[in-house]
Amino acid sequence: MTADHSLPSWNDGAAKSAILDFVARVTKQGGADFVPPAERIATFDNGGTLLCEQPLQAQVFFLIDRVKELAAKDPRTKERQPFKALLEHDYKTLCGLGRQALFELAFTTHAGVTDEEFERIAHGWLATARHPKFGRLFKECTYRPQVELLDYLRENGFKTYIVSGGGVNFVRAFAEEAYGIPREQVIGSSVRAWFAIKDKRVVLRKAAEFNSFDDREAKPQNIGLHIGRRPILAFGNSDGDLAMLRYTKAGTGLRLALLIHHDDAEREVAYDREFRLSPLTEALDKADQYGITVVSMKRDWKAVFAAD
Amino acid sequence: MTADHSLPSWNDGAAKSAILDFVARVTKQGGADFVPPAERIATFDNGGTLLCEQPLQAQVFFLIDRVKELAAKDPRTKERQPFKALLEHDYKTLCGLGRQALFELAFTTHAGVTDEEFERIAHGWLATARHPKFGRLFKECTYRPQVELLDYLRENGFKTYIVSGGGVNFVRAFAEEAYGIPREQVIGSSVRAWFAIKDKRVVLRKAAEFNSFDDREAKPQNIGLHIGRRPILAFGNSDGDLAMLRYTKAGTGLRLALLIHHDDAEREVAYDREFRLSPLTEALDKADQYGITVVSMKRDWKAVFAAD
Repeated sequence: MTADHSLPSWNDGAAKSAILDFVARVTKQGGADFVPPAERIATFDNGGTLLCEQPLQAQVFFLIDRVKELAAKDPRTKERQPFKALLEHDYKTLCGLGRQALFELAFTTHAGVTDEEFERIAHGWLATARHPKFGRLFKECTYRPQVELLDYLRENGFKTYIVSGGGVNFVRAFAEEAYGIPREQVIGSSVRAWFAIKDKRVVLRKAAEFNSFDDREAKPQNIGLHIGRRPILAFGNSDGDLAMLRYTKAGTGLRLALLIHHDDAEREVAYDREFRLSPLTEALDKADQYGITVVSMKRDWKAVFAAD
Repeated sequence: MTADHSLPSWNDGAAKSAILDFVARVTKQGGADFVPPAERIATFDNGGTLLCEQPLQAQVFFLIDRVKELAAKDPRTKERQPFKALLEHDYKTLCGLGRQALFELAFTTHAGVTDEEFERIAHGWLATARHPKFGRLFKECTYRPQVELLDYLRENGFKTYIVSGGGVNFVRAFAEEAYGIPREQVIGSSVRAWFAIKDKRVVLRKAAEFNSFDDREAKPQNIGLHIGRRPILAFGNSDGDLAMLRYTKAGTGLRLALLIHHDDAEREVAYDREFRLSPLTEALDKADQYGITVVSMKRDWKAVFAAD
């Protein structure tokens, strides 16, 4: 099945074969595993699955820069935690806070901002902000094999979704450009919005209160809410994605669940259990038991970054 | 502009002209009002806008039949309110409860049911349940001019969504068949789901707790959450839709907000202010002020039901 020329940035091997074989079977009209196009839902985590999340997720760097702007207006901010750790790029303290606390901080920082203002702020940041290690724009720290895979799935009639722990509006600000995924196919963490009037116009303003932290069990719950269909393919890279992978595999008929293992210190970063913000422990230990295909970045990917 | 042959079930007049003119302008390449296809989002309320909601919403009849099944197992149910009112088709008492209380009752009745079981139950009911006045299947009590309008919008590159106060899973059970709208383009009221294991399979079970009651301000909030774009066209029929219509109109560029007035006692039912479950009062009084086009069922529709 790997004789075709699809997925050129994937090395031949078990992972690539599993993908090509799966797609061939679910798209074969009249075949035993055929799935009609409307049911060909594929869901991808974002950070670590489509985009580099080391040393921290892009959104945390966005937050650092936003807090810098606040600190310029109110110098006392610099002395208060967790702002101090953010401004000093103290990754150890930041990771110690945990992912949810970091996102809560991001949400507090943007309370009262309208959806449209947030879009402009995020867009402006994404246009210039660069990754501290790789030097390229954050939005260009996407994985080339994954961008190819998204295209390949769409060419085969799949509808591709992002189901991210990151803020839904932040991911929407670059998903179309980076992945060809429209805003309405991005599911993520969110705050409550309130309906307000600003300059005589109806707007939605961000509240400081969580609506959903889209991680672990919340991923399948939000898939049920937003899509209303079980995916037939899901791709993740951490324990936060395990519930989504299991939910996908438990559907009837052929299903494919994939998990990236970041084992490539040379081209990216080698990490799994020790990355506190988004560890890969249980999902790796139980991949076999749950029928999840582990993708080794080192072994399975010919190239890593889209822009290389 | 009304010289073309689109929307045959609409009578020529101000409402039809407003629709044809709007679509012509937003789709005219190079025109001042051109909107790229990705931004052509149209949102429709369901009950009363796409489907007859008199004497009660289809979902309330579904609930009555579900409660009958419960009462057959536990005869004491028959004596308890609000079950008694439901079983006796006591519409006055039911309307007095209010819409949110009725939906809460529906949700309680289905607590613990999995998404897939609910789909089967709703599908089974929809296949046979008939409207008490019109005699046809509930899912065939759709409005022909509206089904034509949905088709017409899609032919013109629009993405059509339902944004309903009804339960999202109930509306999804017939939206594709009745309106050509896929499950993932249905937004509605929802309960929280929980991630559970049943017969060794991962499932989502319905909790008895509300996630969102998709009415009034919640409609634009849920549009922001699910779609992440402001609609350019919205269609409703009650005060519960007013926030969505105002949110739509407040976007930049050309926008169209429409409101059905049920003024046709002969072909359907004439009602507005007095229908307690879903009154039309403020939206009608302020339609001019907010730039909302009122559609008269009697004057603007050549035919009412899709199946006529």
